[in-house]
Amino acid sequence: MSDLKQHISSAFDRDLEGIQAQIMKMGGLVEAAIEGAAKSLDTRDQELAEKVRQGDAVIDALEEALQDEAARVIALRAPSAIDLRVVLSVMRMSANLERIGDLSKNMAKRTGVLVQLHQVGGTATSLRRMAREVELMLKDALDSYIQRDTALAADVIERDRDVDEMYNTLFREFLTFMMEDPRNITACMHLHFIAKNIERMGDHVTAIAEQVIFLTTGEKPDEQRQKADLTSSDLSLSPQHEA
Amino acid sequence: MSDLKQHISSAFDRDLEGIQAQIMKMGGLVEAAIEGAAKSLDTRDQELAEKVRQGDAVIDALEEALQDEAARVIALRAPSAIDLRVVLSVMRMSANLERIGDLSKNMAKRTGVLVQLHQVGGTATSLRRMAREVELMLKDALDSYIQRDTALAADVIERDRDVDEMYNTLFREFLTFMMEDPRNITACMHLHFIAKNIERMGDHVTAIAEQVIFLTTGEKPDEQRQKADLTSSDLSLSPQHEA
Repeated sequence: MSDLKQHISSAFDRDLEGIQAQIMKMGGLVEAAIEGAAKSLDTRDQELAEKVRQGDAVIDALEEALQDEAARVIALRAPSAIDLRVVLSVMRMSANLERIGDLSKNMAKRTGVLVQLHQVGGTATSLRRMAREVELMLKDALDSYIQRDTALAADVIERDRDVDEMYNTLFREFLTFMMEDPRNITACMHLHFIAKNIERMGDHVTAIAEQVIFLTTGEKPDEQRQKADLTSSDLSLSPQHEA
Repeated sequence: MSDLKQHISSAFDRDLEGIQAQIMKMGGLVEAAIEGAAKSLDTRDQELAEKVRQGDAVIDALEEALQDEAARVIALRAPSAIDLRVVLSVMRMSANLERIGDLSKNMAKRTGVLVQLHQVGGTATSLRRMAREVELMLKDALDSYIQRDTALAADVIERDRDVDEMYNTLFREFLTFMMEDPRNITACMHLHFIAKNIERMGDHVTAIAEQVIFLTTGEKPDEQRQKADLTSSDLSLSPQHEA
């Protein structure tokens, strides 16, 4: 980047700083939503779950304001191609954050159902650990954006494999619990839903980290990288393995 | 819109027409992907499933080209606020289409697993009917964009409720099948996954229809509309109802 002309402080820079501050604020709220949703599930805390559900409206409103502000900046400042790339990236990151917020809300919704159902082993604790990993990835992805740290962004992308692996392990556990005792079936359907939600949050965090790499290097990370959700192809999951 | 000045044909208009042609091409491919994925599942046709999986790369490439082209048009033409709104909307619609394509690919992936498992009632046929409904909604959403037909767009949004209702019904059926016979459990976990995928495709189609309304009227449809996936709150799904 050293051969690029240094920006002189301009109206565009001030606008961009404002947008970036909004993104970081949104990021903080989304991190808290992930943590709250996972904790409410693990501790069966319906009050906390309700707080997460209601908090999503704030995240949605921030996202909408951010999209409007970004469009306003583009229309008003007619930024250069490189500056435009930054604004468009921020818009995409904001959409990813909003989706993670939605997924957290969906997770919190299930807490109300699950407290009324048969408890299934330690799976809620495993889900909380998985959510914790995604939350840390998100924190690092946002840090990597602010510091334009591509190594950190690449690390986030790499760690998404761990999340996928946790999901695969949980999928197998749910099958086992359901086969062992039909009373586990309904709860496991909901728990599986939550596991898949968290796995998707990881995908959105990965998309944010990929934006950072694209912004900094101009290169798109390999989009053909293998998806590590094996449940769509792994035949060891066939019912012959039933206990 | 009658009080807006008619565009005189400009470089921007020609660029926009090019982008719109791309979106319609993408839309056609995505419709075919939904149909192919659902058919391959219903008829247990692995060759067709493989075709859908491979075809997703074409959709992804179109999306990437479209995003680049839209950014190029914004940077080069510095469109007015209203024209900018059109381009940003098309970028969002393109992202929605790409996600529907991904979900179709994921559905097709499961065909390979499901052909090796215990067949579960007529659920694959029900899933195909549900996918057919989403495919028709997508066709209408794209038509409503081209014709700026807000009534048609509103109709698409309304029909998403039917898709959600189909999902709720299927969720109950899967629970029943699993409780009746543990050999159904693995297949039902995959089938539930597919049902949820189709339900999410409906949400993305709805988002496209909402863009059309926003573009035409400047108003965002009520984002607080009730989500009709009842499985997160409906307690009739508790295991006491087990057969």
